[in-house]
Amino acid sequence: MAQLILASSSEIRAALLRNAGVEVQVMPARVDEDAIRAALEAEGARPHDVADTLAEMKARKVGDKMPEALVLGCDQVLDLSGVVLSKPESADEALAQLRAMRGKAHKLLSAAVLYEAGKPVWRHVGEVRLTMRAVSDSYLDDYVARNWSSIRHAVGAYKLEEQGVRLFSRIDGDYFTVLGLPLMELLGYLGQRGFIAS
Amino acid sequence: MAQLILASSSEIRAALLRNAGVEVQVMPARVDEDAIRAALEAEGARPHDVADTLAEMKARKVGDKMPEALVLGCDQVLDLSGVVLSKPESADEALAQLRAMRGKAHKLLSAAVLYEAGKPVWRHVGEVRLTMRAVSDSYLDDYVARNWSSIRHAVGAYKLEEQGVRLFSRIDGDYFTVLGLPLMELLGYLGQRGFIAS
Repeated sequence: MAQLILASSSEIRAALLRNAGVEVQVMPARVDEDAIRAALEAEGARPHDVADTLAEMKARKVGDKMPEALVLGCDQVLDLSGVVLSKPESADEALAQLRAMRGKAHKLLSAAVLYEAGKPVWRHVGEVRLTMRAVSDSYLDDYVARNWSSIRHAVGAYKLEEQGVRLFSRIDGDYFTVLGLPLMELLGYLGQRGFIAS
Repeated sequence: MAQLILASSSEIRAALLRNAGVEVQVMPARVDEDAIRAALEAEGARPHDVADTLAEMKARKVGDKMPEALVLGCDQVLDLSGVVLSKPESADEALAQLRAMRGKAHKLLSAAVLYEAGKPVWRHVGEVRLTMRAVSDSYLDDYVARNWSSIRHAVGAYKLEEQGVRLFSRIDGDYFTVLGLPLMELLGYLGQRGFIAS
């Protein structure tokens, strides 16, 4: 039986897999995400394709070293009407992102690609639609001030599993995809090919 | 400012509220849930109404003692084609429930009722639709054997946040409602009436 390797340093993705009873080894891919993201966006790549391409690059980077393993690459992108929002670099940028999303719906796209023997064998981009309330300026100011140490690591500058839930009126899609991994679809594939029981 | 009291011993509901930054005091309602549930079902009550009625009874029970507080009663019901599934009383019952749900969709209904000054002031029943894979008999046998100590406390005999996620191919609805509380709708009401900032 091949081993499953997660080409990502994301603790939450490893935890999602382990909670589901799937053994996984973590081996983060070293790719210059910011540069690749900027280059793809400069070429006018759609948010969906940015996420998918980055997930594949991470899977390939580790997969090339481990051709006998099944290597999982992942990426998450926030799509606000066709524009990609990333992790905020400052509290001011966090505030600007939240103001841009306020009163509107946006999408979280969570891409996963499995590499094996030097090529991609499975891929999926999960999608969740989130509708933000028309919260006040003062609420957003307070939210960023109180939560900056946590939300600086989050695309779109919110964490749904913490106080960020108060920003939203509606979520369409599953929680695993919100957290950055289309877990059910991945488990479906792993079950079909007999990597896990089903 | 009134205080918010959770008329439930559910740790996960208290955690959901606290993670969202809402102060809540826990004061479980003592009602004979099983007897009430059985009586309602014997009268042919719909699953939606069973959940709503039980949530209201719990809110009223505590609310009558604390008329100045805002008291939250909650209940969750699993609706499989109009039939209510409860927490399994034995591993055999768990297996029978999982077999009945296999290859089909079912709903989780999470009801919440707020009582204040002796009457209900807000109510909502959140709904999530879950589609279970056509998993094998042997997989279900193993699943129940491995997870019985955990799933005996869960309606429908599965825990999505653990290995239970492997049983599902699709979830339509938000995760908070899966966990037993229509959190976004509740926060929306608490914000509107100025109980929390918004």
